[in-house]
Amino acid sequence: MAITTVVFDVNETLSDLTPMGARFAALGAPEGLGPLWFAATLREGMAQATGGELTPFAELATATAAGLLRRHGVADPDAGARHVVDGFLELPVHDDVHGGVAALRSAGLRLVTLSNGAASVAERLLGDHGLREQFDAVLSVEDAGIWKPAPASYAYALQACGVDAAESVMVAVHPWDLHGAARAGMATAWLDRHGDTWPGYLTPPTFTVGALPELAGHLA
Amino acid sequence: MAITTVVFDVNETLSDLTPMGARFAALGAPEGLGPLWFAATLREGMAQATGGELTPFAELATATAAGLLRRHGVADPDAGARHVVDGFLELPVHDDVHGGVAALRSAGLRLVTLSNGAASVAERLLGDHGLREQFDAVLSVEDAGIWKPAPASYAYALQACGVDAAESVMVAVHPWDLHGAARAGMATAWLDRHGDTWPGYLTPPTFTVGALPELAGHLA
Repeated sequence: MAITTVVFDVNETLSDLTPMGARFAALGAPEGLGPLWFAATLREGMAQATGGELTPFAELATATAAGLLRRHGVADPDAGARHVVDGFLELPVHDDVHGGVAALRSAGLRLVTLSNGAASVAERLLGDHGLREQFDAVLSVEDAGIWKPAPASYAYALQACGVDAAESVMVAVHPWDLHGAARAGMATAWLDRHGDTWPGYLTPPTFTVGALPELAGHLA
Repeated sequence: MAITTVVFDVNETLSDLTPMGARFAALGAPEGLGPLWFAATLREGMAQATGGELTPFAELATATAAGLLRRHGVADPDAGARHVVDGFLELPVHDDVHGGVAALRSAGLRLVTLSNGAASVAERLLGDHGLREQFDAVLSVEDAGIWKPAPASYAYALQACGVDAAESVMVAVHPWDLHGAARAGMATAWLDRHGDTWPGYLTPPTFTVGALPELAGHLA
């Protein structure tokens, strides 16, 4: 079955989270807390998913940021955490996103997003960068009731789009996301911008690209 | 029903992971990668648990360490990752562990461990610090087939010990672990060594202590 629908992860796949480190630094905490905070937020969301529960991304991200800021002696960790999480509303997209989206649209593919974050945050990101009209739907696992990479999160997106798993491809920088999509029967495209190594314990991706514009060549 | 059995988490709850940062530093990478690496390893294990899958802790920890070392330009990231993960075999226990274990044993309680890591690593830790004979069983989720905080991981431990959830208490520094134990019907004891704030989206712990010896007073 030919691929008709491209499902994009949002955080780090479309958006560039690098500026989040500066938000910690502005509060007097180490800039390196940015990656730790994001990993810990994902850990929290996935922990809840192992029991069939979901708390919205922003609530987990805020609590996790506050905890890190408190440990680092920031005076008002709750206000600081709001400052950090507000950074999601001002993120850039990666340099390869505009060209990649244009190439996929030119190839006649339908584009949607599926984020562990809120749909409103993805709407804001796409809108701010002139990309919103290129996407047919902006979906969040909050409407699925469970985070990626739980199987039901992908099933929700496919049902919302009215497509079979076999005619879809999940695009992400995170191997765990693609492993979950592969479990759900989707093709997978690993956007490996850093020349990383695929983790041997996960299902290998269908396609691997170093930048998003390369993907259209695989799908056309 | 009175509590008869105390189930301990191992990593960070009994062991002190602080020296793991020095292992990254010895390879020329930032010492701050220690906490990021541990959070990312947990994220990987929980991601797999959302789909009912399990990969052993050491394999996830090695792959995650190698990825971080590669990103930081370390020449042989696979050998470096083995150096990092070998650090689990030389960890200290926290200062309050010996006194806490002695007090709980004096109160007539049965002690066991339940780790997301390998049972052999926990055996080594307890043996090296003269604590092994205080514990009736050293259990790993690898024998449950799924990581904490999935419900089946705690059910496995309770069955292995032959105790009802209502006569057990889970002890951990990680709120997500205690939330999972509470879902499984266990009492929970939060070991809050750093004066952290309990995350509002998780079931509050039955007991909170700042150091392990305080727990015996709650259970006696």
